[in-house]
Amino acid sequence: MAATATRARNVSRPAASRRKLVYDFEEGGADMRALLGGKGAGVAEMTRAGLPVPPGFTITTEACNAYLEAGNRFPQGLLEEVTTHLRRLERKTGKRLGGAANPLLVSVRSGAAMSMPGMMDTVLNLGLNRQTLEGLAANTGDLRFSWDSYRRFIQMFSKIVKGVDADLFERELERAKSKAKVESDSELSPEALQELADRFLEIYRQETKEDFPEEPGEQLEQAIAAVFSSWNGRRAIAYREYNHIPHDLGTAVNVQSMVFGNMGDDSGTGVAFTRDPATGQKRLFGEYLLNAQGEDVVAGIRTPQPIASLRKALPGVYREFQEIAAKLESHYRDVQDMEFTIERAHLYMLQTRSGKRTAAAAVKIAMDMLDEGILSEQEALLRVEPEQVDQLLHRGIDPRAKVRVLATGLAASPGAATGEAVFDADRAEALAKQGHKVILVRVETNPDDVHGMIAAQGVLTARGGRTSHAAVVARGMGKPCVAGAGEVRVDLARRRFEAGGEVIREGEVFTIDGTEGRVILGDVPMVEPKVSGDLERLLGIADRLRRLRVFANADNPPDAARARSFGAQGVGLCRTEHMFMEQERLPIVQEMILAADAESRRRALARLLPFQRSDFVGILEAMQGLPVVIRLIDPPLHEFLPSHDDLLEEVTRLQATKKSPKRLARAEALLQAVEQLREQNPMLGLRGCRLGLLFPEIIETQVRAIAEAAAELRKRRIRAVPEIMVPLVGDVEELRRSRDVIEATLKQVAREQGVRLAIKIGTMIEVPRAALTAGQVAEEAEFFSFGTNDLTQMTYGVSRDDAEGKFLGRYVAEGILPYNPFEHLDPAGVARLMELAVTEGRATRPKLEVGICGEHGGDAASIRICDRLGLDYVSCSPFRVPAARLAAAQARVEAPSGQH
Amino acid sequence: MAATATRARNVSRPAASRRKLVYDFEEGGADMRALLGGKGAGVAEMTRAGLPVPPGFTITTEACNAYLEAGNRFPQGLLEEVTTHLRRLERKTGKRLGGAANPLLVSVRSGAAMSMPGMMDTVLNLGLNRQTLEGLAANTGDLRFSWDSYRRFIQMFSKIVKGVDADLFERELERAKSKAKVESDSELSPEALQELADRFLEIYRQETKEDFPEEPGEQLEQAIAAVFSSWNGRRAIAYREYNHIPHDLGTAVNVQSMVFGNMGDDSGTGVAFTRDPATGQKRLFGEYLLNAQGEDVVAGIRTPQPIASLRKALPGVYREFQEIAAKLESHYRDVQDMEFTIERAHLYMLQTRSGKRTAAAAVKIAMDMLDEGILSEQEALLRVEPEQVDQLLHRGIDPRAKVRVLATGLAASPGAATGEAVFDADRAEALAKQGHKVILVRVETNPDDVHGMIAAQGVLTARGGRTSHAAVVARGMGKPCVAGAGEVRVDLARRRFEAGGEVIREGEVFTIDGTEGRVILGDVPMVEPKVSGDLERLLGIADRLRRLRVFANADNPPDAARARSFGAQGVGLCRTEHMFMEQERLPIVQEMILAADAESRRRALARLLPFQRSDFVGILEAMQGLPVVIRLIDPPLHEFLPSHDDLLEEVTRLQATKKSPKRLARAEALLQAVEQLREQNPMLGLRGCRLGLLFPEIIETQVRAIAEAAAELRKRRIRAVPEIMVPLVGDVEELRRSRDVIEATLKQVAREQGVRLAIKIGTMIEVPRAALTAGQVAEEAEFFSFGTNDLTQMTYGVSRDDAEGKFLGRYVAEGILPYNPFEHLDPAGVARLMELAVTEGRATRPKLEVGICGEHGGDAASIRICDRLGLDYVSCSPFRVPAARLAAAQARVEAPSGQH
Repeated sequence: MAATATRARNVSRPAASRRKLVYDFEEGGADMRALLGGKGAGVAEMTRAGLPVPPGFTITTEACNAYLEAGNRFPQGLLEEVTTHLRRLERKTGKRLGGAANPLLVSVRSGAAMSMPGMMDTVLNLGLNRQTLEGLAANTGDLRFSWDSYRRFIQMFSKIVKGVDADLFERELERAKSKAKVESDSELSPEALQELADRFLEIYRQETKEDFPEEPGEQLEQAIAAVFSSWNGRRAIAYREYNHIPHDLGTAVNVQSMVFGNMGDDSGTGVAFTRDPATGQKRLFGEYLLNAQGEDVVAGIRTPQPIASLRKALPGVYREFQEIAAKLESHYRDVQDMEFTIERAHLYMLQTRSGKRTAAAAVKIAMDMLDEGILSEQEALLRVEPEQVDQLLHRGIDPRAKVRVLATGLAASPGAATGEAVFDADRAEALAKQGHKVILVRVETNPDDVHGMIAAQGVLTARGGRTSHAAVVARGMGKPCVAGAGEVRVDLARRRFEAGGEVIREGEVFTIDGTEGRVILGDVPMVEPKVSGDLERLLGIADRLRRLRVFANADNPPDAARARSFGAQGVGLCRTEHMFMEQERLPIVQEMILAADAESRRRALARLLPFQRSDFVGILEAMQGLPVVIRLIDPPLHEFLPSHDDLLEEVTRLQATKKSPKRLARAEALLQAVEQLREQNPMLGLRGCRLGLLFPEIIETQVRAIAEAAAELRKRRIRAVPEIMVPLVGDVEELRRSRDVIEATLKQVAREQGVRLAIKIGTMIEVPRAALTAGQVAEEAEFFSFGTNDLTQMTYGVSRDDAEGKFLGRYVAEGILPYNPFEHLDPAGVARLMELAVTEGRATRPKLEVGICGEHGGDAASIRICDRLGLDYVSCSPFRVPAARLAAAQARVEAPSGQH
Repeated sequence: MAATATRARNVSRPAASRRKLVYDFEEGGADMRALLGGKGAGVAEMTRAGLPVPPGFTITTEACNAYLEAGNRFPQGLLEEVTTHLRRLERKTGKRLGGAANPLLVSVRSGAAMSMPGMMDTVLNLGLNRQTLEGLAANTGDLRFSWDSYRRFIQMFSKIVKGVDADLFERELERAKSKAKVESDSELSPEALQELADRFLEIYRQETKEDFPEEPGEQLEQAIAAVFSSWNGRRAIAYREYNHIPHDLGTAVNVQSMVFGNMGDDSGTGVAFTRDPATGQKRLFGEYLLNAQGEDVVAGIRTPQPIASLRKALPGVYREFQEIAAKLESHYRDVQDMEFTIERAHLYMLQTRSGKRTAAAAVKIAMDMLDEGILSEQEALLRVEPEQVDQLLHRGIDPRAKVRVLATGLAASPGAATGEAVFDADRAEALAKQGHKVILVRVETNPDDVHGMIAAQGVLTARGGRTSHAAVVARGMGKPCVAGAGEVRVDLARRRFEAGGEVIREGEVFTIDGTEGRVILGDVPMVEPKVSGDLERLLGIADRLRRLRVFANADNPPDAARARSFGAQGVGLCRTEHMFMEQERLPIVQEMILAADAESRRRALARLLPFQRSDFVGILEAMQGLPVVIRLIDPPLHEFLPSHDDLLEEVTRLQATKKSPKRLARAEALLQAVEQLREQNPMLGLRGCRLGLLFPEIIETQVRAIAEAAAELRKRRIRAVPEIMVPLVGDVEELRRSRDVIEATLKQVAREQGVRLAIKIGTMIEVPRAALTAGQVAEEAEFFSFGTNDLTQMTYGVSRDDAEGKFLGRYVAEGILPYNPFEHLDPAGVARLMELAVTEGRATRPKLEVGICGEHGGDAASIRICDRLGLDYVSCSPFRVPAARLAAAQARVEAPSGQH
């Protein structure tokens, strides 16, 4: 319906025949994108910046609309205007369209306001015919090139302007090569090419029932009409409907004079960066070839020269190029990636754009340009992507190394690791204890594998998404992980995997690259992360400019210490359940879960208490003086028990074989217990505060461990700032009652230890209802922390673990969703709930502290939203802390002034 | 913290010593509840209505607060005021407190504004002592009664006013009975009672270190103080904190003169209704005993007389009682349930309250009172509970029948059924085909059982909540169901169940009562539902007064026909997946699911098409002229496949025993397919529109079936109004693309059939994000239908199936949640999302039609919310339609004027 509406609008639009329909490049600029299209505006901007751009002109989008509205007829006056601009172009170039001696050749390109597949492509060398190609041959001294250009022009024009089947030409070309007994086009003689051009003209006639337009003016007219018509081509319309682009924008047409780098040794072509894109060093960086066209560089027949050598070859041109490069940098205020052609010692700039650069270069360039006065601090900050900061903090594979990629999977946790393949956690742990470096390979991981992941250098899984267990745990640990590498066929029984035609057996060395998602054969040279002085300086500026504090999610003392070293200002999420997962504790946890009554549950909990307490002592000590937000137990209890399916298999097998009745009895009892706890949708089941309300003794033990740890540190004169967070609250009453239990325990420990304990109590906001009733929830909460993983799951009704491998990937690939909402916060739904919660929570309690501890806390786009919503802090994995510091500052710099 | 705040308020409250602190009953009224408490206001209202209430007075809640604030001291002037009112009471009764000849005895009761456990109970017969009991004996001619009253008074006073351990008295009483060799208190002689009273006084002295207050004035003073103090008793404070009742309300004290029905044959006591509470017939209905006290009626030693016989016994009193009954009815404008005592031919009304009545009586009374001019139409409507209408529409167990209850479970689907026990669906179907009436007994049901449920009279499950599969499907079918009867031990292998000490084997007859949740031994007499003329009339009035339309959820032609006969104005939810579940179709559905490619999927779908089409023809024909909202396939595909656990067991067993390799291969293949579709949280997985977007051929088939059905009916000149509903939309783009597929198919069928098809397309709003982005979703939706089952699940983060048997029950029992949000819409969370969706949806599309099709659509409290939010219709199960019609009208009647 949207489509129908815009189409209707299109028809009712008044013709624009009175307006100027053609602009020389000199007349346009970057701000005229709607009228001149993206390409036209860009080339105008370069021209305006005083660069030697091959001259030309742009026919406006309005002309296109008028053409289409008139039933594919040129609007009145258009052709006259084109002729006027063409004459001016001829004067500028000293060439003439159709001139036999010094022919003007042009390219014709479509250019809408946004780039759009399905639109007409480029036609090069328009203006060639049998006469003008003689002139071209004389000028270039290359008859072969001239005939080749001519036959290419016929081919392009036929296909692009007239829609003739490209295969017809390709087949003819193949025939010519086989007749000449050569392998490549470039080996064809001028005579063979001339013969080929004749065949092409014949094909054109057969297919279009017309003669090929020899007259350049007619070629141009037809090309312009074809560009206009392509706006209403089937593919273009479908694309616009698909992407909700209005149908009445129209496309512009760019006509630009061709230049040639192959007109002798004072001609050439090349590409260059204004600074070294690998290191950021301030020097021209690039390469060129004399007497060559762009294709020759790409073809790799001749070896290009480094740009510095142009100084000797064509000193004047080099000086001019240096000046232009400097001008471009200061015009665009960024490193430029430039394409140029030299035609008879004349330098022409064909294209310039911001240069892609490595993370290290990005940081150096930003700081250098700050020092050079090109950029302000704010601007310099915006020149480094937070993801680039992230890249700098992980070991990576040496980009110069040649590697054999066996398979690719998801880049689940950045960094690279080399080690021996192992296929179960126990073996990983045992080998690591013996000093081996190992990589744990599993179909997918679960909590039973955690001790193996701790022991391993990295993790490879065949199944699971970016937020699968393996990915999340590995990221938390800062270990490289490639997840969901479907091409890897893991054979656990035979302790090996196959990928890319290789078999890797247990103990054989291979490499994973979690930054790129690659599985690589053998050992590979690595580069260690360097936190250079420039990065420190950049982050120092970010720290001064940001408003959001940056916390880290850390569950153990080493993570906390690492987070602090990366600049974390607190721990925003300390998950207590990971503490239960460790191997020596799990049996006690299981005993606690399977306890028949509160009393035996208490006994098991009492044995867990010292473990938890010492964990908290370690974390609080590492974060000394900074807040540590500790979340009470969250996952459903069956996550701590053996897998239901394994037990069912065991029981069935033992029943069928009638062996070991004792083992059977034990397995049956365990299966029964697991079945009792089993849930159809554990995500929405008995977990979070619901657990604590049913089994208050679990909360009591956890709170006691926290309080005793704080008391112990107090006595050692170490400032510990624990805060207690209640998960999965959906109604204020859940929090109120949890709070009662927590406060009672805190009081009791304070009395026993003879200390005062002022510990804040707050809640996760991760259930939509908690956000919707935040005004009430804030009555009992001293702080909110958005658990946006769960909040996104429940707001979308999407289980991340189930969806990422299945429909969510297709949703993003097919554009149903613009991105994965577990990677970037969803502004319309999830962030709306967050905004409501912040506003209404603070209405109840103006000093309410609000943070985020979901994985979005480390994502730049999400941090921007958090800044806008007025959150106090974001919390992310330790390795993301530096990136988050930068992102938080960028959010502030980019915020509309006056916001917060 | 709320508690602290209110306590602080309490302290800062100014003393109220200047105000009137005591009110005679004549001075109060129903509107003075805050000052006089609930009881005081009630008794004042009766007095004011001119009823012969035993006179008395009320000490205000403000007096109580002043007493507590002053540190448990009577406020200035209070005792003087009490004395003044006491003297007035003595004048009214002609009796004197402490008077030996004609002593005034009073009851003292606490009475806060809301009833509250932990507050002081009643003290009766205050004023008795050795002197006054002589006077009482003389007046009643019953010395035994007087001594018994005295010893009871001592016991009550000691326990309630002084907190003496009640066991001490009970033990003494036992001793006295064994000494006198009698079984019951009433057999004790006056002498034995006198001796007992002496022992009681001794106990009082020992426990309180004081003498028992013989002086009636002092008794009264102490009783008043005790009532006041009980406001701050531990239990009362805990109760208030638990229920968030402010601590500064205080309690009133009611002092009322005692009357005695055992003062001879012109005295008596009884209870009566102003109309027959069973049938609604307009006649006094009740019973009484002459020369008796209330206790005698309860004790059942003498048989009470029907109230009509009082006409002969005490014609004057009867006439007065008749008048009073009529007066009470017109004062309260409702049937009254009255307690009365006759003391020496004087009639006293002790209590009156609205009379509980059967569903049938409620309807008749409402219509009669309308005819009698007592009630307006609006008021008459409000006198029938929607649940009562519901009750009238199901077969029930004859309330007079004696039944042996074997177990109780959840009243999951109303109505009663008798039949032979069967333990699997196939057998149920087979036996039903042979003409047996059967009841399907399962631990719990799943889609494989549906054909057995269809065949059965009713369903009994040992596990599962009110919204378990069994319960939901049974309610949809209108079949009785008792679910989650934990005491029923089902032994599927031996085809029997045990409950209440009985074993019921397959083929043995038993009965379930889904209205009460009872499992009953053997056959039981039933009463058939009577839709009396009064009910029809009531619903007719409701239809005129309501704004909401009432639709029904129906998946097949018989349900649709039934819904229509109950007054449904459309089908609000026609689930298409139930059509797939039927036995002959399931194998084709499974073939479709397991298809390797779209082509073979299409082939299977083509075979399903005729089934779906004929279903739609049937439903659309049954609803001819009314809208039928058809929801496209919703559940995850694995629901159509065999159970994962069963397959895993089979595979493991076959592997272990190494028999039947062919069966093993088949089972393994199926298990693999099921595992691929298996999800950790299927509720949040691949279902709803997500399925349709991945497998558009499923939608195409369903839409084709709908369109072809509509075309067929069009040709038969039957007006069919199908509408197509897309489930589980979370983002407008999902709807937009589903819509594209639907519209394309509709167009194609219209072309093929040569008809015009105008079929509305809309969406469920059941994912929180759909509500949060309703403004966008409405761009593509012609209607919204709230799926509040899922919306509640996702808003609360609670899986209904998992939670109802587990924590949700405890949440409600312990008051963490005031009610189960799956039974009544949650106003703060879920309804807030709904309101937002209605407002923003209609902002985009003012004529957007909005309904609800979750189970809340049949719940009166939820219907009130739907009316307030401006929905267009509610949709519920066919049997709930009449109740919903009434509830919709009540919502309108009760709405603040001017709303919608």
